[in-house]
Amino acid sequence: MSVTTDTRPLDVLTDFPAIPAGWAYLDTAATSQKPRPVLDAINRGYGETYATVHRGVYQRSADMTLAFEAARERVAQFIGGQPNETIFVRGATEGINLVAQCWAGTQLRPGDRILLSTLEHHSNIVPWQMVAEKVGAEIDVIPLTADHRIDLDAMAAMITPAHKLVALAHVSNVLGSVLDARRATEIAHSVGARILLDGCQAVPRLPVNVAEIGCDFYVFSGHKLYGPTGIGVLWGKAELLDAMPPYQGGGSMIDRVTFARTTYAPPPGRFEAGTPHIVGVLGLHAAMDYVEGIGLDRIHAHETALVTQAREALGQINSVRLFGPDDSAGIVSFAVEGVHPHDVATILDEGSVAIRAGHHCAQPLMDALGVPATARASFGVYNGADDIAALVKGIERVTRIFG
Amino acid sequence: MSVTTDTRPLDVLTDFPAIPAGWAYLDTAATSQKPRPVLDAINRGYGETYATVHRGVYQRSADMTLAFEAARERVAQFIGGQPNETIFVRGATEGINLVAQCWAGTQLRPGDRILLSTLEHHSNIVPWQMVAEKVGAEIDVIPLTADHRIDLDAMAAMITPAHKLVALAHVSNVLGSVLDARRATEIAHSVGARILLDGCQAVPRLPVNVAEIGCDFYVFSGHKLYGPTGIGVLWGKAELLDAMPPYQGGGSMIDRVTFARTTYAPPPGRFEAGTPHIVGVLGLHAAMDYVEGIGLDRIHAHETALVTQAREALGQINSVRLFGPDDSAGIVSFAVEGVHPHDVATILDEGSVAIRAGHHCAQPLMDALGVPATARASFGVYNGADDIAALVKGIERVTRIFG
Repeated sequence: MSVTTDTRPLDVLTDFPAIPAGWAYLDTAATSQKPRPVLDAINRGYGETYATVHRGVYQRSADMTLAFEAARERVAQFIGGQPNETIFVRGATEGINLVAQCWAGTQLRPGDRILLSTLEHHSNIVPWQMVAEKVGAEIDVIPLTADHRIDLDAMAAMITPAHKLVALAHVSNVLGSVLDARRATEIAHSVGARILLDGCQAVPRLPVNVAEIGCDFYVFSGHKLYGPTGIGVLWGKAELLDAMPPYQGGGSMIDRVTFARTTYAPPPGRFEAGTPHIVGVLGLHAAMDYVEGIGLDRIHAHETALVTQAREALGQINSVRLFGPDDSAGIVSFAVEGVHPHDVATILDEGSVAIRAGHHCAQPLMDALGVPATARASFGVYNGADDIAALVKGIERVTRIFG
Repeated sequence: MSVTTDTRPLDVLTDFPAIPAGWAYLDTAATSQKPRPVLDAINRGYGETYATVHRGVYQRSADMTLAFEAARERVAQFIGGQPNETIFVRGATEGINLVAQCWAGTQLRPGDRILLSTLEHHSNIVPWQMVAEKVGAEIDVIPLTADHRIDLDAMAAMITPAHKLVALAHVSNVLGSVLDARRATEIAHSVGARILLDGCQAVPRLPVNVAEIGCDFYVFSGHKLYGPTGIGVLWGKAELLDAMPPYQGGGSMIDRVTFARTTYAPPPGRFEAGTPHIVGVLGLHAAMDYVEGIGLDRIHAHETALVTQAREALGQINSVRLFGPDDSAGIVSFAVEGVHPHDVATILDEGSVAIRAGHHCAQPLMDALGVPATARASFGVYNGADDIAALVKGIERVTRIFG
C-alpha cells in the first residue's frame, strides 16, 4: 500500500521546536505542540514585562493589566462573545464544573433532568453526575447514529420540559464527530433547556461563533489550542453569569469583605478568585493569533483531508476497524483485530509515531463501541501526508508482528 | 537621612531578566519575579520535551509523566510532606476553597465554629464564609496583639470544642507578621480542631516543614515562590484527604465511569481533574531548586535585615506610620500622614520604585488598623540596600510634595 508524501500543505512544521524531524506527533487531541510565537509570548511575559494584574499602582502592573484584559477581548472576539462573558479558568474541565456547581447547582430541582450523549468525555459526565446527586436530578443519554454521531433525531424525540440542561461535545475527542451545534441548541431551547458545548476539540479545528450557534455556555482549553497549559475559557451568556453565585472565594472576586458580610464583584471577576494564570493568558492570546494567522477554514480543510487520507489508507488494511464518521474533524479512532491498542501504540512509538491508546476519558463510549480501548491518531496544523505514511507503515508492522 | 548602599548580600539580581537596572521592585508579596532557571525549565517544557502526562503510551509522554511526578516528590520534600499528600492546584486560593468545600463542606454541622484571624487575606476568609453559610456554621475572629501579630493567647482563651477548623496565615501578606505555627497548631489540636495554614508568604521567606509544625493542611502559590503563574500546592494529611469527596469531576480523577455509577481515584488524583498545568509544575520544580540553592535560612536572614533597615529608615521620617512587628518577614506596611497610599505609590513609581498601595485583599485588617489602605514594600531575593535607599528617597519626595 502506498501513500503519497507531497509537501505539507500548511507548511508550518518549522514553527514547532519540540517536534524533531522524523517524529510523527499524532496526539494533538490530547494536547497540541506549541509554536514559537506562543513560546515568545511566554518568555516576554516572564522575562521582560512580568508583574501582577488588577492591583498594582505602578506602570509595569498597569501595563500587564492592559495586556491581560486585551487577551480577554481577543478570546471574546475569537469565539464571537463579549469580554464580560469570558471567564478564564484552568481548562475546559474547570469550566464545566463551574457551570455544574454555580448554575446547575442552584437552578436544578429534584426531578429535573440533564441530557448528555454517549460520546462525552468524562469531564462532561462526572460534573453532572456530582451535581445531579446533590440536587436530586436525573441524567439521560442521547444515543449515537450508526456512524457514531450524536443522534439529534433521537435527541429531539427524547427531550422534555423536565430537561433543564443539555451538555454536548462540539467535536468528539475520540471519534472526531462534529455536532450540528446550531440544531442541538434549537432542540434544547425548544423545551426551554440551557445548552453547554464542550469546545475543546472544536476551537482548534473549526471556526466557532457562539452567537451564531446560540448556545448558553461554551468551554475550551488553551493547551489543545496550541497555547499554554493551565489556562482555559468559560464563555456564558451575560444574563446567566450575572445570576450565578461565585465559584471560589478569594481576592479579586469580591466587592467588599467584612466578617459580617461579603459582597461579590460582577462577572467575570466574580468567577476569577485569586491571582490568575497571567502568563498563561498572554500565551493563549498568542495562540489564537497564530491559528487565525493560518486561518481556521484552512486548518479545517487540511485536517479533514488528512482524516480522509488516513481512513482510506487504514481502511485498506484488513485487520483495521475504523470508528467514527468519514468526515470527522482531525481525529481517527481505530482498532487492529486481535491486538490491544496499547501494543499498537507501543509498536508505533518504536517507529517514532506517537498516538494515544486507551479509553480517552470516555469509558461509556468504549462500552457503546464494545471495546475496552481504541487507538487514536489525531492531527494538528503541523501534520502532513508523511505522518500518515509513517502511521500506516507502523500499522503494517503491527499486523506483521501479530499476524 | 542616609542609607548605606553596600553590595547586595545575595548577589542574585542578574538571575532576573525582567528587573532592569535601577528599578526597585518592591512588590514581591504580590508576585515574585522569575529567575533564569525557571524560564529555562518553562522553555524546555514547551519547546523541547512537551507532551501530555499520565495517558500517553509513547516515550515522550512517559518521560513527561516522570518529570511531572518528580516535581510532586520535590514539593513534598520541600515542605516535609509525602507525595500522595501533595495536590497541584491553581494557587493557594484554590487550595483553600478545595478544603472549604471538600473537607469543611462535608465535616461541619450546624452550630460548629470556624476560627480565623483579623489579618487574614480574603482568600482565607471568603471560602469559609461561603461554606459556613452552606452548613450553618459560625466564624470567630482572633484579634491581633498591639504589635499586629495574631494573638495566640487570645486564641487559646477563645477556642472551644465547637471550633472544628482553624485557618491562619503563616506570614501576613500585609504586615509580614510571622505566626508561631507550631503553637497555633497545638492550640487548635487541644480542642480537636483541624488547622489550615496559608503559606503563600511563608514558603518564599522561611524554611517550612509541615511535619514539624504538625498542621493538617498547608497551601501556597507558585508565582509567589519565584515560579510560574497558575500553579500552587495543597498539602493535606493523608487520612484527611482519603476521606474527602472529589472537588471537580473530569478526566484523571476517576477510577471507572458509567452513566449508572462513577468511582473515584485515590488522592492526589481524585483532586486533580483534567489535564494539569504540566509546564507550570516543571517551572515550580525549578523555582524550589532555585530558592533552596540560595538557602531559605539565608533568604530569611537577608529579608529580615532589609526589613530592619527599611523600618529604621522610614521610622526616621516624621510623617510615616509603620504597621506590623519589627521582626516581620520581608514585608513593611506603612502610611504617610495626610497622603493617600495610592498617591504614595504613584510618586514612588515616578522614581522607579514599585510598591503596592491598597487594602491588599485584607479589608478586615484595614478596618482593624483604622485605615482604608496601606502602602506596602515587600522584598525578595533580588532586593538590596539600594532598593531601600530608593524607597526612602521616594518617601522623602512624597513628604516634600505633600508637606
